Amino acid sequence: MIAVDVMGGDFAPDVVLQGAVAAAQKSIPVTLFGPYDLVYQWLTTRFPSWHTYPITIVDAPQQIAMDEESVAAVRSKTQSSLVKAVASVASKECSAVISAGNSGALMVASALIIGMRDGINRPAIAGFLPTSGGHPVLALDLGANTECRPNHLYQFAHLGSEYVANMVNKPAPLVGLLSNGHEAGKGSVLTKETYALLKGSSLNFYGNVEPYDLFQGKVDVVVCDGFAGNVMLKTMESVVSLCILLDSSLKGKIADKGMHTIRGGAPLLGVKGCVIVCHGGASAQDIEDAISMAYNTSKGDERSKTLILPEK
Amino acid sequence: MIAVDVMGGDFAPDVVLQGAVAAAQKSIPVTLFGPYDLVYQWLTTRFPSWHTYPITIVDAPQQIAMDEESVAAVRSKTQSSLVKAVASVASKECSAVISAGNSGALMVASALIIGMRDGINRPAIAGFLPTSGGHPVLALDLGANTECRPNHLYQFAHLGSEYVANMVNKPAPLVGLLSNGHEAGKGSVLTKETYALLKGSSLNFYGNVEPYDLFQGKVDVVVCDGFAGNVMLKTMESVVSLCILLDSSLKGKIADKGMHTIRGGAPLLGVKGCVIVCHGGASAQDIEDAISMAYNTSKGDERSKTLILPEK
Repeated sequence: MIAVDVMGGDFAPDVVLQGAVAAAQKSIPVTLFGPYDLVYQWLTTRFPSWHTYPITIVDAPQQIAMDEESVAAVRSKTQSSLVKAVASVASKECSAVISAGNSGALMVASALIIGMRDGINRPAIAGFLPTSGGHPVLALDLGANTECRPNHLYQFAHLGSEYVANMVNKPAPLVGLLSNGHEAGKGSVLTKETYALLKGSSLNFYGNVEPYDLFQGKVDVVVCDGFAGNVMLKTMESVVSLCILLDSSLKGKIADKGMHTIRGGAPLLGVKGCVIVCHGGASAQDIEDAISMAYNTSKGDERSKTLILPEK
Repeated sequence: MIAVDVMGGDFAPDVVLQGAVAAAQKSIPVTLFGPYDLVYQWLTTRFPSWHTYPITIVDAPQQIAMDEESVAAVRSKTQSSLVKAVASVASKECSAVISAGNSGALMVASALIIGMRDGINRPAIAGFLPTSGGHPVLALDLGANTECRPNHLYQFAHLGSEYVANMVNKPAPLVGLLSNGHEAGKGSVLTKETYALLKGSSLNFYGNVEPYDLFQGKVDVVVCDGFAGNVMLKTMESVVSLCILLDSSLKGKIADKGMHTIRGGAPLLGVKGCVIVCHGGASAQDIEDAISMAYNTSKGDERSKTLILPEK
């Protein structure tokens, strides 16, 4: 059962409900968290046969706005669609949650209500980026933490490595550290200190990588702080849009490669449960894809709970 | 007279000399800094008519390697092509210098030998990035300073604003601050504190911008620390390469738009003289373009020396 935050996202509730119904039509059971009457009316008007699909409605009368301060919103709006959807994963009623809502609030709610895994201080948004090397690279953090310490990046490296090992069935994935040069001495204070931690770890550490290396697929996982990761992700999306403006025939080829955006959603790693973050501007297709991803990821979730960080 | 660091760059001296000769053939006077015999032999063998062009050779027997520690290299190798080329700008023998060599060493040499402008603590690499809005956006810093304080970004904003005002003849350019969201509260500690400085300044401050806004041309100048700027620049270049792999017909269209790379070179702003930084992997065409840029920029350089930072 996948929990869906009906009221989250720039085009909520319409687009979220469309995506959720499409997933239910493919036999994925969904629980829709939102104002009961609103959701019931929408379904009855738009999909009169909705009762024949695995759809449940749970009343959540409050809504967290996209620009609300995260901690205050999560603490005060306990009846919001976002908080109730997250809480359903903590209580095991649902196996995963997806939301295109306020990503800060989703992160805070996940950490506070579901809780963090042992040894992990911060959740990180992870996403597979396209490469010319034939396999995508998992990059994290893509925006959950604008301020990071070396220990956070060290934890992200373990989380990303475990995720790739499980999801792509690739043991000992090669881990790179995003920097502005290859040499060990290159980078910010954060990257230099993180380099030392990763070098001394049990991970399969490649060393520093520049965006060139990442997009050539030289590694399997890339770690960075959420500010740099977010700039990288949004630059990638923006430049793809620019290229499509120059040549519209590129659009189909890019969609095939999944290059236009993090398709559907991105997992929030480090929490004790499956949380999928969608773009605020997610389309119905993105929502449907995120629900499929949540469904597939949560099935294999037992494995991911066994992560134990080696001592440093 | 443009000073050229003959021994700087991944493909030096061949590519640098080819580019310099091409510029001289277009009547731009160049002074080539490198081992005298090597440069003389190369010119005499490859361009026997070189005496008929405005080319001067200055002996500089030492070479700074691409991965040498910057400060130590600049201090110890006073007879290197890089240091002597930079010194020729400080002594006014040349009006500008271009180098595809060790960019850290170029930055250190420029700051130490030419000196910083009043009120500016750090040089910044600036480059025009392509947009869908019809005009390029000047972004800085693109990699000179991996660690920045708010005051540095504040200075970069003034330098970038002045540069665009002078080079594109656009008074009061709109200045954006790179962040991971639009709201004033979004971003790292650095961006939040810089936001307050820029908001209270005499600049035409737009507010926070995400890469989407930048690549749509919503502002004229974008400031960021050199780590984020470098990630953005290299992500742009990598994604363009990926798109070209998908559709080779894009290559010509992208070259027309100047999207593949910072064409030629990027000015190092904040120093009391004209310094152009080229990619380590610069082609002969890039070197020629950088020399043209240096020639054109240095002609208008009187204006840029009048910058006075308003009090905060």
